[in-house]
Amino acid sequence: MKWWGWGDPDKRIQLATEAVAMLRSELGEAEPWPHAGLIEVVVPEPRPLPRTVADAVGAGAILTGREHRVRRAVGRGYPDLVRLRAGRLDRAPDAIVLPGSTAEVARVLEVCSREGIAVVPFGGGTSVVGGVEPLRGSFDGVVTLDLRRLRGADVDRRSLTARLGPGLRGPEAEEALRAEGVTLGHFPQSFEYATIGGFAATRSAGQASSGYGRFDDLVTSVRMTAPVGELRTIDTPHSAAGPALRELAVGSEGTLGIITDVAVRVRPVPERRRYEAWMVADFAAGTEIVRSLAQSDALPDVVRLSDGAETRANLGLSGAGSSKRALHSGYLRVRRRARGCLVVCGWEGERKAVAGRRSLAGRVLRSGGAAALGQAAGEAWERSRYEAPYLRDELLDLGYMVETLDTAHTWSRLGELYDGARAAIGASLAAEGTPGLVMCHLSHAYPDGASLYFTFLARRRPGAELEQWRAVKAAASAAIVEAGGTISHHHAVGRDHLPYMQAEIGELGIETLRAVKERLDPAGVMNPGKLVG
Amino acid sequence: MKWWGWGDPDKRIQLATEAVAMLRSELGEAEPWPHAGLIEVVVPEPRPLPRTVADAVGAGAILTGREHRVRRAVGRGYPDLVRLRAGRLDRAPDAIVLPGSTAEVARVLEVCSREGIAVVPFGGGTSVVGGVEPLRGSFDGVVTLDLRRLRGADVDRRSLTARLGPGLRGPEAEEALRAEGVTLGHFPQSFEYATIGGFAATRSAGQASSGYGRFDDLVTSVRMTAPVGELRTIDTPHSAAGPALRELAVGSEGTLGIITDVAVRVRPVPERRRYEAWMVADFAAGTEIVRSLAQSDALPDVVRLSDGAETRANLGLSGAGSSKRALHSGYLRVRRRARGCLVVCGWEGERKAVAGRRSLAGRVLRSGGAAALGQAAGEAWERSRYEAPYLRDELLDLGYMVETLDTAHTWSRLGELYDGARAAIGASLAAEGTPGLVMCHLSHAYPDGASLYFTFLARRRPGAELEQWRAVKAAASAAIVEAGGTISHHHAVGRDHLPYMQAEIGELGIETLRAVKERLDPAGVMNPGKLVG
Repeated sequence: MKWWGWGDPDKRIQLATEAVAMLRSELGEAEPWPHAGLIEVVVPEPRPLPRTVADAVGAGAILTGREHRVRRAVGRGYPDLVRLRAGRLDRAPDAIVLPGSTAEVARVLEVCSREGIAVVPFGGGTSVVGGVEPLRGSFDGVVTLDLRRLRGADVDRRSLTARLGPGLRGPEAEEALRAEGVTLGHFPQSFEYATIGGFAATRSAGQASSGYGRFDDLVTSVRMTAPVGELRTIDTPHSAAGPALRELAVGSEGTLGIITDVAVRVRPVPERRRYEAWMVADFAAGTEIVRSLAQSDALPDVVRLSDGAETRANLGLSGAGSSKRALHSGYLRVRRRARGCLVVCGWEGERKAVAGRRSLAGRVLRSGGAAALGQAAGEAWERSRYEAPYLRDELLDLGYMVETLDTAHTWSRLGELYDGARAAIGASLAAEGTPGLVMCHLSHAYPDGASLYFTFLARRRPGAELEQWRAVKAAASAAIVEAGGTISHHHAVGRDHLPYMQAEIGELGIETLRAVKERLDPAGVMNPGKLVG
Repeated sequence: MKWWGWGDPDKRIQLATEAVAMLRSELGEAEPWPHAGLIEVVVPEPRPLPRTVADAVGAGAILTGREHRVRRAVGRGYPDLVRLRAGRLDRAPDAIVLPGSTAEVARVLEVCSREGIAVVPFGGGTSVVGGVEPLRGSFDGVVTLDLRRLRGADVDRRSLTARLGPGLRGPEAEEALRAEGVTLGHFPQSFEYATIGGFAATRSAGQASSGYGRFDDLVTSVRMTAPVGELRTIDTPHSAAGPALRELAVGSEGTLGIITDVAVRVRPVPERRRYEAWMVADFAAGTEIVRSLAQSDALPDVVRLSDGAETRANLGLSGAGSSKRALHSGYLRVRRRARGCLVVCGWEGERKAVAGRRSLAGRVLRSGGAAALGQAAGEAWERSRYEAPYLRDELLDLGYMVETLDTAHTWSRLGELYDGARAAIGASLAAEGTPGLVMCHLSHAYPDGASLYFTFLARRRPGAELEQWRAVKAAASAAIVEAGGTISHHHAVGRDHLPYMQAEIGELGIETLRAVKERLDPAGVMNPGKLVG
């Protein structure tokens, strides 16, 4: 991963000249924003750690080099990228600890609890909510616990389950599973870097979640090493033996302990994958179609409805080449629809089932007035599914701010949530003197509702990027809370959403989580300042 | 409900003469077991309660009459029926409190916490694990909180969700939903009496759970009034904002607070319902078929595979009349299969979808060697789906013990669990000097495993019924734990499974639940002696 941005340093998504022109015309000229050189990055000196920490894992499993610390000082949200580009990191871990076994994890947590050293779990480092920020809390020391060495993979082909280590990245997990003919089907935008442990700790949702299930749906049991011991949930398909403790560990974001082992449901590798795109009259009509699909067992495995702004931006901003041509040719066919909205649908599975389910969904789409754009346009989306964060780096280079946020609500209140959040983001960007482009897509559809994923772009305010971001984030979050939506459908809480947990789960909900934390982590060393603080 | 047994006092399921003969031949002659008269029941005198309890709800909402107390002194498990028949109740609530609103629930819990009075929540009183037993714990007083007055029902047709009051019985909830054209599809054997609050508090599973989902799958949000305040989870289809507190309230069995409001997913009332039966060679072959169905998106909404013993008993013990004839005629067609096992499949939904899914499942069944018995046999099962507990009363009258228990495991270990539990129950009954009939069905199939539901019959040991039951229950539970199964798939924990929670969730799991309880119920008045004690 680039130390200052996203992904493979050798991979760039070139923005087309017309795309840059479109941005300048819509958002105004921006001041280009080169990133600092690694050598220039200001990072606080590490504080010395007691030697008991190194003893817990062996000296070879502790990293203290500057680049290692820079690379684990932030996640990959917009404020993280701002700080990296500016070359100014207020915080960094004092050391990175790489346990090689569950027993070593337990020893590290024990030592850190005793010595008063904060522990920040780290998987792929892809958090966009400040989840891996090395906050010291009230402690003198802070270590980042990098789980990359915990990479076991054990498939139970008969039960279609697998036990996976938390340190496996998305592609590594899929590779291990494919050797047994199965797949997890969990493909979030962060897939290339994010890890199994991170997926579980943050309740990740993949782009094919409608078909395969969100990650928390896929988890059948977990083992979590807390400072006081191991919490292990039973390995059966279901249990009515009390509250589901698995659901306390999943989503706990490293504040209760380290998830060292995740059992998940897997599926046979699909025989057939079919992606296609459709165009609908407007976002409201598209929403009704997706609701019909979700409420009638006709939901494709992937379904994404872009609003008008996102549809236009996808066409304008997508990388040059075949993807863009495919989308364009589709769009031109229906360009008479001024507010036309793109729908991408995907099906994966047995050949016959895909054909049957596709024909079922096609009927619903057509009866809702959707026009088919064909497979080329759908496949264009599929090919570019992990490109957005690469594109973000290009836009930042040009001097534009790019941020995303996600929420969800029931179908009854989704329109209200969409209108409220979109208006709040737009108004807040305008108030900052940087009128922006606010786009949204509806994805992760359920029988009872759906998620909304907003992306917004604006000229950055040079030197005041974080203030600008904070103002918009606060306005968007307030609007989400006002409409009764969740503060996050799949980005988790981290540090950025912590102020909204009161609205989300109430004072007693927060107290309940704190009670659990006090029992499992009495010294309070686990990922301080996150989730509920 | 009969005060001494199950169901409508005017409804009896007559056992056929041949059935009685079969029982006598298989289990030996038993001593008939008439139940005591209500007047003869020995029940402890109520202890006086402070008047603040009555003040919390109004004097008209407190019941202290003897019959009221007898009716809420036990649930409907075998040990409960033993005590009722014998007319000897060691415990009864000092009073029954009937709050009329969430605010009154809060007031009652506040008063009871302050005064040190145990509170036992009560819905339909159908617990089979001692869940409604009025244990005083360390307190002088114990009240049963009967939730029958909390019966709101509010349907959101657009989101296909409904908010339901905890006091609604199964049929009442369905009636309210049907007025809006929707159904919950939750039909456990206790459906006629059990309540929405009980379904949520115990993680109930209905007979059509493969299609509609278990109750905990259907719940989208809950409100739970604890002694210290209200826990309320967000009303969105999903959230990644931390651990799912909903999953702490669901399954909490009244030990943390009172669930006062449950939001659930509902579905349109099915246009078509189709039930049919099949016969397979043996239990192992049937298990493979159900696994194939569950792992290939071809799972019917209802699927139940009886083992050889249950198949034979169903034929012999089912009530006289058309149900029996239908089953028999089917059975005779395949009687050459000595160990033949019955499979019941049901599909509910849109006409076309039912036809399509049925044909998909039919292919899997036939390729696994199943022979079709037709719809009459399937419909016979459907008609008798709530009859088992009525039949139990008849068997008890004759002097036989009848008990059921449920567990679950992954497909890989289901055979081991089946063999282990069946052998343990059989051996334990034999050791009691009452060799029995042990039957099982596999139901609630998932991609990764399934539940097993055991029913066993034996001559009772007159005067030592509870000792006999305890011995068998302990042997069965030990075998389940040994095989790594869950101590309950859908019967919950109550008092009877409490000793096995250590095996289920470990010491740290128990400590975690206790930490939550201490925060929500610091006086410890909520349903003491249940779940984790």
